[in-house]
Amino acid sequence: MMYSLEAGGKRLRPILVLSAAEAVGRNARAREIAMPIACAIEMIHTYSLIHDDLPAMDNDDYRRGKLTNHKVFGEAMAILAGDGLLTHAFHAITRASALGASPETALAIVADLAKLAGAQGMVGGQAADMLGEQGVTSLEELEYIHLHKTSDLLVFSVIAGARIGGATQRQLDALLVFARKLGLAFQIQDDILDLVGDAAKLGKPVQSDVTGQKVTYPFLIGMEKSEALVVRLTQEAKQALDDARLAMPDTMHAIADYLMSRDH
Amino acid sequence: MMYSLEAGGKRLRPILVLSAAEAVGRNARAREIAMPIACAIEMIHTYSLIHDDLPAMDNDDYRRGKLTNHKVFGEAMAILAGDGLLTHAFHAITRASALGASPETALAIVADLAKLAGAQGMVGGQAADMLGEQGVTSLEELEYIHLHKTSDLLVFSVIAGARIGGATQRQLDALLVFARKLGLAFQIQDDILDLVGDAAKLGKPVQSDVTGQKVTYPFLIGMEKSEALVVRLTQEAKQALDDARLAMPDTMHAIADYLMSRDH
Repeated sequence: MMYSLEAGGKRLRPILVLSAAEAVGRNARAREIAMPIACAIEMIHTYSLIHDDLPAMDNDDYRRGKLTNHKVFGEAMAILAGDGLLTHAFHAITRASALGASPETALAIVADLAKLAGAQGMVGGQAADMLGEQGVTSLEELEYIHLHKTSDLLVFSVIAGARIGGATQRQLDALLVFARKLGLAFQIQDDILDLVGDAAKLGKPVQSDVTGQKVTYPFLIGMEKSEALVVRLTQEAKQALDDARLAMPDTMHAIADYLMSRDH
Repeated sequence: MMYSLEAGGKRLRPILVLSAAEAVGRNARAREIAMPIACAIEMIHTYSLIHDDLPAMDNDDYRRGKLTNHKVFGEAMAILAGDGLLTHAFHAITRASALGASPETALAIVADLAKLAGAQGMVGGQAADMLGEQGVTSLEELEYIHLHKTSDLLVFSVIAGARIGGATQRQLDALLVFARKLGLAFQIQDDILDLVGDAAKLGKPVQSDVTGQKVTYPFLIGMEKSEALVVRLTQEAKQALDDARLAMPDTMHAIADYLMSRDH
């Protein structure tokens, strides 16, 4: 569990939790209270990578420039490490309550995570991705996969942080649109970087999607339209962010800009 | 997810949740409110069986008389089905709150489950079991494995039900002792049945532990002492149950008697 948690990565999801909590601006201790939630979502993200890398799934040997979990500890331990991280994420959320979140808020965050990381969310996206590899994937199917495999955890991060920060329902609604579009842009950018990126910066071989015959946005609509779509989705995400009328939106805007222009 | 949930089994853990909730006798709607918790623990139990049966773990072809999940849907889907069930269990717990459990009680149950099913609980027991198969296992190590692989989910079931039923801290303490001893007796009985049981009743081949070179109580201390230990642990469990001074303890006593005398 610690090997994969400590393997690094962008820590995008925890940063979104903490940034959203602060951006709302209605709780002076928002960042402190949101910290266990930030840890929880990184545990969920990390467990999903460990299981995704398994031989029965994507069969990857490297992740973040290090050997994948099962390459070091074996398949059985990798499965259990993923199970342990997934389970412990829910324990971390209960700790936000001990730090000052109301039991109602903590329980709403538990329900959000169970839905967005589960069979109707991330796990559902993973399952659709697995099934998609067995045949032709349409653009609609690919969008479904990206929305659930990637956007759902970003949605959770932003909404959970905003809940801790004291957001209104109208703000939560706008932030949901922001996170969904940001997640889709993020995943299409991932598809693009896998084709043209620098293996050293990515920490994994490029064109792994091509050799694995994975259907991607560039494969379906071409590189030029994919790049244009990333720009458009990011603009729409930033518009939704403006609609949320947060007290301190600058960090959230900066994150959206960074994700669009990143090279790894 | 549904294939394995609907494969049957004793439903021991959900029965313990509902029985404990009713036995305390301080909440007329205890059974109704406890129902989503009963479903949650069966989802956890079922996910653990799906992952435990995988080729990288115990590599079992049959479970409850049916083909194991990965034999029907493949390894990738079996891993995801387990992940989905584990995640959805936490969603089920939040539903107890909608039915009338206080947010504090629901959150305490989330924390219990995350601890008892996680790396310090069931997953930790599974990991110790995997490591144990690579070398000699002592009686202390075997007790650790049994307490965490099996007792921890029974402890969760009894404690969660009792929380919904309105148990005092003193009652929870006594029920913890009851469930730990019951779980250990249950697992030793499992070891015994694997050696001498009827394959048709068990729904899986007997002596699978022997062919898999698994260290068991009968292997370490002999059949006679193992059988005596099941009787003693069950008596101690029932004593702890008396100590809990439940309003309606009869069903709980009957469950303890049944588990000791079962043949599958």
